[in-house]
Amino acid sequence: MATMQPPADPEADPRVKAVFDDIRATRKTDFINNLWRVLAFDAALLESTWAEVKRVMAAPGTLDPLTKEMVYLAVSVANSCSYCVHSHTAAAKAKGMTPAQHAELMAVIALAAKTNHLVTALQVPVDPAFDVRA
Amino acid sequence: MATMQPPADPEADPRVKAVFDDIRATRKTDFINNLWRVLAFDAALLESTWAEVKRVMAAPGTLDPLTKEMVYLAVSVANSCSYCVHSHTAAAKAKGMTPAQHAELMAVIALAAKTNHLVTALQVPVDPAFDVRA
Amino acid sequence: MATMQPPADPEADPRVKAVFDDIRATRKTDFINNLWRVLAFDAALLESTWAEVKRVMAAPGTLDPLTKEMVYLAVSVANSCSYCVHSHTAAAKAKGMTPAQHAELMAVIALAAKTNHLVTALQVPVDPAFDVRA
Amino acid sequence: MATMQPPADPEADPRVKAVFDDIRATRKTDFINNLWRVLAFDAALLESTWAEVKRVMAAPGTLDPLTKEMVYLAVSVANSCSYCVHSHTAAAKAKGMTPAQHAELMAVIALAAKTNHLVTALQVPVDPAFDVRA
Amino acid sequence: MATMQPPADPEADPRVKAVFDDIRATRKTDFINNLWRVLAFDAALLESTWAEVKRVMAAPGTLDPLTKEMVYLAVSVANSCSYCVHSHTAAAKAKGMTPAQHAELMAVIALAAKTNHLVTALQVPVDPAFDVRA
Amino acid sequence: MATMQPPADPEADPRVKAVFDDIRATRKTDFINNLWRVLAFDAALLESTWAEVKRVMAAPGTLDPLTKEMVYLAVSVANSCSYCVHSHTAAAKAKGMTPAQHAELMAVIALAAKTNHLVTALQVPVDPAFDVRA
Repeated sequence: MATMQPPADPEADPRVKAVFDDIRATRKTDFINNLWRVLAFDAALLESTWAEVKRVMAAPGTLDPLTKEMVYLAVSVANSCSYCVHSHTAAAKAKGMTPAQHAELMAVIALAAKTNHLVTALQVPVDPAFDVRA
Repeated sequence: MATMQPPADPEADPRVKAVFDDIRATRKTDFINNLWRVLAFDAALLESTWAEVKRVMAAPGTLDPLTKEMVYLAVSVANSCSYCVHSHTAAAKAKGMTPAQHAELMAVIALAAKTNHLVTALQVPVDPAFDVRA
Repeated sequence: MATMQPPADPEADPRVKAVFDDIRATRKTDFINNLWRVLAFDAALLESTWAEVKRVMAAPGTLDPLTKEMVYLAVSVANSCSYCVHSHTAAAKAKGMTPAQHAELMAVIALAAKTNHLVTALQVPVDPAFDVRA
Repeated sequence: MATMQPPADPEADPRVKAVFDDIRATRKTDFINNLWRVLAFDAALLESTWAEVKRVMAAPGTLDPLTKEMVYLAVSVANSCSYCVHSHTAAAKAKGMTPAQHAELMAVIALAAKTNHLVTALQVPVDPAFDVRA
Repeated sequence: MATMQPPADPEADPRVKAVFDDIRATRKTDFINNLWRVLAFDAALLESTWAEVKRVMAAPGTLDPLTKEMVYLAVSVANSCSYCVHSHTAAAKAKGMTPAQHAELMAVIALAAKTNHLVTALQVPVDPAFDVRA
Repeated sequence: MATMQPPADPEADPRVKAVFDDIRATRKTDFINNLWRVLAFDAALLESTWAEVKRVMAAPGTLDPLTKEMVYLAVSVANSCSYCVHSHTAAAKAKGMTPAQHAELMAVIALAAKTNHLVTALQVPVDPAFDVRA
């Protein structure tokens, strides 16, 4: 099932082809996953989304690539995005996530969800010490 | 506002006192934040919640403590838990998160939320390559 | 803070007055909580919302009133609605929820959130035995 | 699709076998559903998750088993966990949920979601009477 | 997979038949989608749900039908409801949503999710100017 | 409470000043709301976020500005972002949302949330007719 038909020949559009080429070059692979194939229905949306993914996830910074993938995966789990959970689990493994790290990540996500719900249920007041203006 | 009154003198209960003592010893601080003060309404719930937090977050493992805090924070953001966002931002800073890392973390969380919603809106089919059984 | 000003004299509108009178009669109290005061900005929305609350929560059925309040509270926690958590905790207590039941309810909600996130993170396939058509 | 391969022969690991045996004994059935089969990838995570499920859901307390299942189901719905909705609907039926109760439960969950969103959209201020410290 | 079996011959129940007839007449089509077929398990729930959908979505008002469908779709995306995303995308197209509008809608939903998470992560204080009582 | 201190004199940074100037020019007002003041902690994040908001929300397109604000508000409600609900309610009113439209918008959001939860609870199978590839 899907709600948007990916174009049959997306790279016939030179803007789409340019993005796909950049994905292949940046990721050093020929594999273009379905998110990009579907986003090709609108070249502007494809371009801006890929530009942001490339800038945030692929450019050098102060967080290492695996940490960023695990954070991305954690948000995707909490937002219940099945596709995203699949793609970012695969990406985290490709960036070196070991089975032991995977298991620990699961334990952290599960615990966070648990205490998130407990705190909301009990409406715990924020400690003044946690206010950045304190 | 709150929905659960923390006990006036929680450490009068020896089970609560034991947990609070362990929190102080584990975290090397006298500060007991409100989550634990409120959970003290039920010693069993307090004990089991702290035991899990201690095991998952404080025990040595394959993920470093800052990475775990950032993942915890990311889940708390996606679950819209204001208290949790405050407490885990403070904890991440206490574990060394720099302003530059904080900014990058914000960018990753924001991007994940954006693509989570795009993917759900477009109902992108999972690539067979992402199936672990493939 | 609020995004909708409640009318200054809501019962000047006979449709609002009729709903408020019915709330007071149904709940056997003079207290009209803020949800209804705010909804009074639109008599039709107030009428239809109250009619549904009355029918689902106050009419006799096969679930007892306390069970329904606890389910309502659980959904409100998962949807991160602070007002709703406050109002339905108060309602559950008014309908007899004991501190021990409150603590158990917290434990069930927390556990559900934890396994919800674990299952989503691991994308556990639904067992054929759980398909109602099986 | 899945993101974690369940071990081919999980009970070859004595820690996994011990948990599976306890699940079978506690539930009085030979059926081990997929959640446990997948969690078997990490014996510690399997053990701690099952221990919590057993303690919260199977131990005697002040809430009856069916009420706890309906609360669990309600949270799972709000968190959009398809697997969890399937498994806890099946569990609620196994614990005696009648079709009439099922229909009422649906009506409560639906109404809660509706008013949760209304309240958030209107940013209704919490009534002072709902503050437990009042 | 499903958790509720739709009745085999739903229109044998005159209350269900009346709703189905009204759906066909209101929508000027013979197509009854699965939501209604499944809700037919409980005539009261079917009647009240359809009555609300008809009143809110089909009755004349101040918002045009396409705008309402796009809002409905946006909420369904944020709540991660795959069925709802499919059905309301189809409905929006049936009411005239063009591919260009679809692409813009995606961009607005994606941006909203992004800034929702940023704002929650940074716990931005509400500007006094945004308080309706200001 | 907040988790990020806005810079005391944000416009001392020329990159921040340039963004603030553009916000003022684009919106034809001197008012810079707190989101931008807080984002000023990181000029790059401020620039990229404002660029996207300007492009998606302020550039001419096929959806009118009020429709986009209502969609933005709807997503913000579903994601439980209190700040966002306040700011986008104010923005929608500034773009002409009447009280009657506001009330209808509330009714659509509330109904969508209700059926989202019903559909998830019942795990309604997607009708083949809703598959775009059909």
